[in-house]
Amino acid sequence: MNMNRKKILILGGMGFIGSNLAIRLVGEGADVTIVDSMLPRYGGNLKNISPVEDKVTINYSDIRDQHSLDYLVRGKDIIYSVAGQTSHIESMNDPYTDLDINCRSQISLLESCRKNNPKVKIIYASTRQLYGKPEYLPVDEKHPTNPVDVNGINKLAAERYYTLYSEIYGMHTVSLRLTNTYGPRQHLSGDTQGFTGIFIRKALNKEKIKIFGDGLQKRDFNFIDDVTDAFLLATRNYSLSGKSFNLGSNEIYSLLEFTEKLNSILNFEYEIIPFPKEHKKIDIGDYYGDFSSFSSYTGWKPEVSLKEGLVRTIEYFKPIKQFYY
Amino acid sequence: MNMNRKKILILGGMGFIGSNLAIRLVGEGADVTIVDSMLPRYGGNLKNISPVEDKVTINYSDIRDQHSLDYLVRGKDIIYSVAGQTSHIESMNDPYTDLDINCRSQISLLESCRKNNPKVKIIYASTRQLYGKPEYLPVDEKHPTNPVDVNGINKLAAERYYTLYSEIYGMHTVSLRLTNTYGPRQHLSGDTQGFTGIFIRKALNKEKIKIFGDGLQKRDFNFIDDVTDAFLLATRNYSLSGKSFNLGSNEIYSLLEFTEKLNSILNFEYEIIPFPKEHKKIDIGDYYGDFSSFSSYTGWKPEVSLKEGLVRTIEYFKPIKQFYY
Repeated sequence: MNMNRKKILILGGMGFIGSNLAIRLVGEGADVTIVDSMLPRYGGNLKNISPVEDKVTINYSDIRDQHSLDYLVRGKDIIYSVAGQTSHIESMNDPYTDLDINCRSQISLLESCRKNNPKVKIIYASTRQLYGKPEYLPVDEKHPTNPVDVNGINKLAAERYYTLYSEIYGMHTVSLRLTNTYGPRQHLSGDTQGFTGIFIRKALNKEKIKIFGDGLQKRDFNFIDDVTDAFLLATRNYSLSGKSFNLGSNEIYSLLEFTEKLNSILNFEYEIIPFPKEHKKIDIGDYYGDFSSFSSYTGWKPEVSLKEGLVRTIEYFKPIKQFYY
Repeated sequence: MNMNRKKILILGGMGFIGSNLAIRLVGEGADVTIVDSMLPRYGGNLKNISPVEDKVTINYSDIRDQHSLDYLVRGKDIIYSVAGQTSHIESMNDPYTDLDINCRSQISLLESCRKNNPKVKIIYASTRQLYGKPEYLPVDEKHPTNPVDVNGINKLAAERYYTLYSEIYGMHTVSLRLTNTYGPRQHLSGDTQGFTGIFIRKALNKEKIKIFGDGLQKRDFNFIDDVTDAFLLATRNYSLSGKSFNLGSNEIYSLLEFTEKLNSILNFEYEIIPFPKEHKKIDIGDYYGDFSSFSSYTGWKPEVSLKEGLVRTIEYFKPIKQFYY
């Protein structure tokens, strides 16, 4: 699929995934509209789209406003649904907001499209969080879904809405289950949205990094450009409709190894401390995903090593970090 | 657990399951408060509680009103959470209302209890609908959950909230996955909430019954008194906290066999017709559940045969059917 002149809507387009998609798609000649509510602490940042600010249409609105969506989806060829509440801790502290953003708004989008633009292609940013604690590794898409927090439950319900609207109404929806995505434009401030952003911020600030547990928990890491590639491949392949796919990496590292790689770029102190109580109960132990299903459909595989990705991430943030926290 | 003087809250207490629980519990000496919104077409019916109307406290309110719940849950020993939107078709036509009642209100209840009454025991009426189309029979609790409509997705999310609040906060919640429950006080009017009510109404009215498909779809049927027993057993056993259990029956019948049994009590006409389009896509084929897990914990097994249950159902409705449609 040639993206030139394609009309594209990016929900959450000022955020990490959304802004990187916007920049990539503008580069391919697409006509991009960004929707973002700029909710504090959600990652929306005008700085993120500075390379394309004059080349995109910006629509400040909240995806919880279903009537706006009815108009925004009209005439679009592709919608990237990458807006969301992503903090596991905050989903437990305020389950209503998580439900409204991660479930109700996804129904709104699907209903808006069903009524106003049923042929549009929608790519949804799902999450490995819906698996919960792995029963085996690597986790493939057949793994049971047993989310361990409100966020995971709501994201799972949302993903099922996307699948259902494909099966019942024949709509073109694909869900990508993202794992630890990192890179330029990621959300660095706050302490509740994934450790990569927190660690990178602290490393840039020469603050001591605290690793919870024993540091040996294994994770898979995807550099943002590989994830952007995955979204574009998912867009181009119509045989994926109604399906859900893991992303992932062949490079598996412990939190300690991740920290050591970061430390080889930016020298800082770190220590290993016991799990705080509220984190412990929703910790999932080791996780890494099997992305062979998505590879077999699209040929996708991650190209950027963790080391290279971290170097590029630090290069991005270092001179402009004041815009990020 | 002796129910005498126990303080009990029944959400949806004017409905089918709720009113039968209320009558049973009043009979055991419990102090019962009924909450019901009396939403049209949801099954709430003042006639349902006529045997105990003066022996229960009635609180007309909607479980979507989270502030009322904060007060209603205080001081209660047991809560039966059996209010809900149950129509699969209506969940597709209006997914927002289904989400509000079947997800948001369940979070409200759990949050209210966590803050105001964390030791209360909550029994939640879940549903076989969350399995979707069976991959094997009988369906046990390990079967994948692949709901085929919005209602099933939302009920699944809700059930996971109950489990989560047990695991994270140590609350006492149990979910019973109900299958086709029938009997006195069931909802008979309307055409979107399960075929047993529709068939019984039409049989009582001598209207022709239309069986969709070929009539050979297998189902398991539970008489309401057996289901009431199950709720009480689930209440009495504290080792069930956080768990979900199938109900079910050893008597498995096709829709045609169900119809024939009903026809042997009330003579009427029936015909087999092709599936209407909107039903076909969410039909699940044969379903019957394995209830051995619940039996092994509690000793529960269904006692009332389909024939006997239907006789008792017709005996109940025949003289007072004008109150039900």
